Amino acid sequence: MDIKNFKVYGSLSSPATLKVLACVFEHDLDFDFVHIDLEAGEHKQPSFLAMSPFGQVPVFDDGDMKRFESRAIIRSIAHEYGKKGEELIYWECKRQAIVADWIDVEDHKFEPLALKLVFEWVDKPSKGLTPDESVAAEAEADLAAVLDVYEARLSKFKYLASDDYTIADLLHLPNLQALLGTKAKRLFESRPHVSTWCFDILARPAWSKVLEMQKKPQA
Amino acid sequence: MDIKNFKVYGSLSSPATLKVLACVFEHDLDFDFVHIDLEAGEHKQPSFLAMSPFGQVPVFDDGDMKRFESRAIIRSIAHEYGKKGEELIYWECKRQAIVADWIDVEDHKFEPLALKLVFEWVDKPSKGLTPDESVAAEAEADLAAVLDVYEARLSKFKYLASDDYTIADLLHLPNLQALLGTKAKRLFESRPHVSTWCFDILARPAWSKVLEMQKKPQA
Repeated sequence: MDIKNFKVYGSLSSPATLKVLACVFEHDLDFDFVHIDLEAGEHKQPSFLAMSPFGQVPVFDDGDMKRFESRAIIRSIAHEYGKKGEELIYWECKRQAIVADWIDVEDHKFEPLALKLVFEWVDKPSKGLTPDESVAAEAEADLAAVLDVYEARLSKFKYLASDDYTIADLLHLPNLQALLGTKAKRLFESRPHVSTWCFDILARPAWSKVLEMQKKPQA
Repeated sequence: MDIKNFKVYGSLSSPATLKVLACVFEHDLDFDFVHIDLEAGEHKQPSFLAMSPFGQVPVFDDGDMKRFESRAIIRSIAHEYGKKGEELIYWECKRQAIVADWIDVEDHKFEPLALKLVFEWVDKPSKGLTPDESVAAEAEADLAAVLDVYEARLSKFKYLASDDYTIADLLHLPNLQALLGTKAKRLFESRPHVSTWCFDILARPAWSKVLEMQKKPQA
């Protein structure tokens, strides 16, 4: 019998799903991945909406309850399944507050610009469409300003929230991976501390496992 | 001597500042409010950027450290200064995960649409500009769909995350207050559970204290 308690419902084309998978692998949880076909609209079916009221992937089901916002899932996994000495979030209020600041920086500052650039430089070309280079240039300039703040921060700490890897770093992985395959690579390479940080976090074994999953054909 | 440990730097025209103030009042913290003049660009000055690297209000200073993302500030205040039996967030992982889901719903689903409507129906008219009614109509339709999910949720629980008031509810206050002064009021009034919830949370004494602050002239 191989009944697993944990299930991740999602799509390997969804950055939010990939973030949750990276977190699940960091915490060595044995889980089943349930592929949700976004093109077929499976995420808008009543059975899926019963788990995720806004019809979005991923959903994390720990056998007891279902959670549907990716950062909320990741925070709660980090709290509930943290390994002593290797926690990716802190229980102590003030240390946790710093992680929370940088989780919201990823959410409000990094991801919106990253998604714009990925859309113009990855998604559009993959469909034979022409990127809007003026939109991309504006997003790239804005992202450069954000990465200047990262560079200053990472010159003081090894990772964004502290000298330890936390979920604030983890949340960057999927978009970082995608951007490094585009012209935006120069933004990261030209900032020495940002560059070291990218190299470090993308080399996490948990992230390699996510990339391995992407290579396998989905059911 | 009246030296207070806590300082909130912000603007009473900033919804994020108002959210933090509501939270500070809920926790009975004695604090100094430092008005940051956004029109004069005080938030982009080096002394402010040293506290808030992206140049945004509010900043919360507890005498020990400065926090700059409003939801991170609110989470950490709720954890650190929660009153026994009246906590606005939970320590227990699974209960906290539900609050986290609904904090992110406010962040990703409610606020972006609310800000669009407030911009069209409050900010533009206040400057003598004409609202773009097609933009407003689209935002209103999207917000109606979000509030349908709220109505279903609030038919099962008294508040968004549970039967207790939590920071997931609190975060809605400033935009809710603004929207109820516009045509968007109909969206809330036509949904009985949403309507009851609005009335309930807007009547919190902590929120009344924020509104009182807005009435006083700022330094």
